[in-house]
Amino acid sequence: MTKLTPSSSYSIALRIRLPNQPGALARVTQAIADVGGNLSQIDLIQQSASETVREICVDAASHDHAQQIRAAVGSLPGVKVERVVDRTFELHRGGKLRVVGKSPLESAADLAMAYTPGVGRVSMQIATDPASVYEYTIKGNTVGIVTDGSAVLGLGDIGPEAALPVMEGKAALFKRFADIDAFPLCLATQDVEQIVATVVHLAPGFGGFNLEDISAPRCFAIESKLKSRLTLPVFHDDQHGTAIVVLAALLNALKVAKKPLEQVRIVLNGAGAAGIAVIQLLRRAGATHILACDRQGIISRSRTDLTPEKASVAVPESGSLSEALVGADVFIGVSVANALTVDMVKNMASDPIVFALANPVPEIQPELISDQVAVMATGRSDYPNQINNVLAFPGVFRGALDCRAKQINTEMCVAASEAIAALIPAEDLDRNWIIPSVFDGRVVSEVAAAVIQAARQTGVAGIL
Amino acid sequence: MTKLTPSSSYSIALRIRLPNQPGALARVTQAIADVGGNLSQIDLIQQSASETVREICVDAASHDHAQQIRAAVGSLPGVKVERVVDRTFELHRGGKLRVVGKSPLESAADLAMAYTPGVGRVSMQIATDPASVYEYTIKGNTVGIVTDGSAVLGLGDIGPEAALPVMEGKAALFKRFADIDAFPLCLATQDVEQIVATVVHLAPGFGGFNLEDISAPRCFAIESKLKSRLTLPVFHDDQHGTAIVVLAALLNALKVAKKPLEQVRIVLNGAGAAGIAVIQLLRRAGATHILACDRQGIISRSRTDLTPEKASVAVPESGSLSEALVGADVFIGVSVANALTVDMVKNMASDPIVFALANPVPEIQPELISDQVAVMATGRSDYPNQINNVLAFPGVFRGALDCRAKQINTEMCVAASEAIAALIPAEDLDRNWIIPSVFDGRVVSEVAAAVIQAARQTGVAGIL
Repeated sequence: MTKLTPSSSYSIALRIRLPNQPGALARVTQAIADVGGNLSQIDLIQQSASETVREICVDAASHDHAQQIRAAVGSLPGVKVERVVDRTFELHRGGKLRVVGKSPLESAADLAMAYTPGVGRVSMQIATDPASVYEYTIKGNTVGIVTDGSAVLGLGDIGPEAALPVMEGKAALFKRFADIDAFPLCLATQDVEQIVATVVHLAPGFGGFNLEDISAPRCFAIESKLKSRLTLPVFHDDQHGTAIVVLAALLNALKVAKKPLEQVRIVLNGAGAAGIAVIQLLRRAGATHILACDRQGIISRSRTDLTPEKASVAVPESGSLSEALVGADVFIGVSVANALTVDMVKNMASDPIVFALANPVPEIQPELISDQVAVMATGRSDYPNQINNVLAFPGVFRGALDCRAKQINTEMCVAASEAIAALIPAEDLDRNWIIPSVFDGRVVSEVAAAVIQAARQTGVAGIL
Repeated sequence: MTKLTPSSSYSIALRIRLPNQPGALARVTQAIADVGGNLSQIDLIQQSASETVREICVDAASHDHAQQIRAAVGSLPGVKVERVVDRTFELHRGGKLRVVGKSPLESAADLAMAYTPGVGRVSMQIATDPASVYEYTIKGNTVGIVTDGSAVLGLGDIGPEAALPVMEGKAALFKRFADIDAFPLCLATQDVEQIVATVVHLAPGFGGFNLEDISAPRCFAIESKLKSRLTLPVFHDDQHGTAIVVLAALLNALKVAKKPLEQVRIVLNGAGAAGIAVIQLLRRAGATHILACDRQGIISRSRTDLTPEKASVAVPESGSLSEALVGADVFIGVSVANALTVDMVKNMASDPIVFALANPVPEIQPELISDQVAVMATGRSDYPNQINNVLAFPGVFRGALDCRAKQINTEMCVAASEAIAALIPAEDLDRNWIIPSVFDGRVVSEVAAAVIQAARQTGVAGIL
């Protein structure tokens, strides 16, 4: 079984009462270390001559591991565990978003300007000049995050209520990284036409829509229909956000491996929403040799089980993933844990590039092949080269909203990839540094600027 | 023509450059006073030995009046108007709401708890125990404000985009008065079934829905269908919010006039959404003699032009509004400016009660009848006894959300009315003080408590 690293996603806060004696705390921290807990923060809550109360935050690797840590601390002589809080659940309690007013409402005069009768003047202005809705309302900075809960993270079809925490998190990321006001729209239907109709009905109040965690192949139809019915940015992040960051990382990884995109042989495993979009974007950027694989192996033209989207990436070759990888330069996994073996990597070309992006457990543990690959990337924050959609969607929407783009097209996506890649100067490129951190403050503004330029060049910018 | 009072809804900020001499500012303020502007605030922006720059905020009565004020100031010798800002439009610029994250996202650990992978644990918890969506998401404190833009304020069918500033204002009021996170949902359809379907699809992410500015008779069907399809609070504020506050005010006005609700003769003018709801609530509270009027006069059973809702309030009597009012104790206008005349009021019973609620111009100017009525109320903040829905909907939803009410029923509305009325102690009741201010901090908590109690008594509370 894969040994998991302790992570703040399984972080607990232990409130413990212990003797106020030298060495008492050290015994606690040692006990935590002995069972593999990762201690992050210790706060002193109260102290008397005989006792101290402390709160200790510890990252565990799983729920069971957290229980183990609690038991280890609780079994120490003289130590009493008063409370254990699961910090992740605590953080989510009551939800993660707030909708707040921008200006004070403390007097009758405030009300008369922000609400009736003053607001009537603003409404009449918009009724007279519809474009002014962008000037006097939230529309121009507001994105709806639309899901039907059918493909939430790696968890599958868990429904719209269970998807809500994810969409709230996404909205919080939109705010944090791009100052965009995003709001979750978790729909109680998985019918394509109903989803499309609902989003079209909601369009007056939104500047764009981010589709999220909608399963393939419905996500393709929904995006395509919405794009044809709305003149607003519509973006399925699982597809295009992933594709943008994969392309950005690959552009830089190929520089490290000194191989040209046009010539490398690429194998992509996992032909879901993300996989199809990655292939489309790589092709648009110049890649020519791409074998896509699913659970049945290479997506070959000879197969009879292909959806239209899979058919669009089918190749003459056929065979297993293992066969596809013989001599390949690049592996891109958007599939499932442990889909890639060490032997498969050994059969790749020299200096192979491996992007193992399955979350939370990658297609292969990086430790197993670190000395065989030129560059390795995962979706995880605890390894180098994290391929994270947060690098793309905030800047893409910031740019699209700022130029009032009528859509988000492929050229804008390629421009976003190139902007992300360009943030690592050639001289700094390294096998462990092909992609900027999500906390690199330049990412959003650079991506937005590139997206705006591409929108203008392709004629989809609403304001120039 | 009715002379309008200057109001902050027509407030302008004049930035003026004037000589730094004694009396210079006095000449400006005098000029503003001479043309009837209402000066609210003066700021000193900069000052030199010879000049000062000041920003002067002035309430005007209309757009033209604001222009007049500007011209009057600009024509003063030595005074230069550098800029005039319409403060209402300025306040609405970029919209009035922000969607913000509740917790910091400043480290990989923050992201791992608020977003992937940590959020997956919360999603799985909700998938396993659906009721926990109220514990770990925004649902339990979130209200959707739904409109189709068909009856916005008194402005009519101006569409969903033009309605957005109003819905944003409403959301800001929800936050300010009840700490509820409300979000505008301005729909690009006026079809009853489409509106219902859209709201039902959105239900997973919302704790309740406030319907707003939807024209009659569609609003009745939409509310009724939503109530039957959702086990969430659904509340058409134009109807029930208005009805609650009218009943609250009437309960106290009748105490001032020393007349019992069961015996008074009430004439209601304007049988739209609000009018029908007011009649229904007054009946439920014990009123027995109510004549409803519309543009055609008394809504008589003999008429053949009645919608089902109008038919439900029809009476055997027939005649004009003027005839209906002869000997009446109470006039309630939810109709149009100047629908009531001084002569009509003269024909009412002694000590009549007049609620002239048309906005912004009431059915009759209060000054014209102040010495003839026992109690007068309007919808305006610049007269005593403002009948304002802000007294009702924040507390109603606060209570409904806090007890997870499966619906908002009439008993809850009556309880809200009684709670509002009870905030003015008997000894303080006065013809000019029958209803608390919207800024009375007790209103929301008292209304919420009464609503919760009524929800429990009628078996619609989800948590006890």
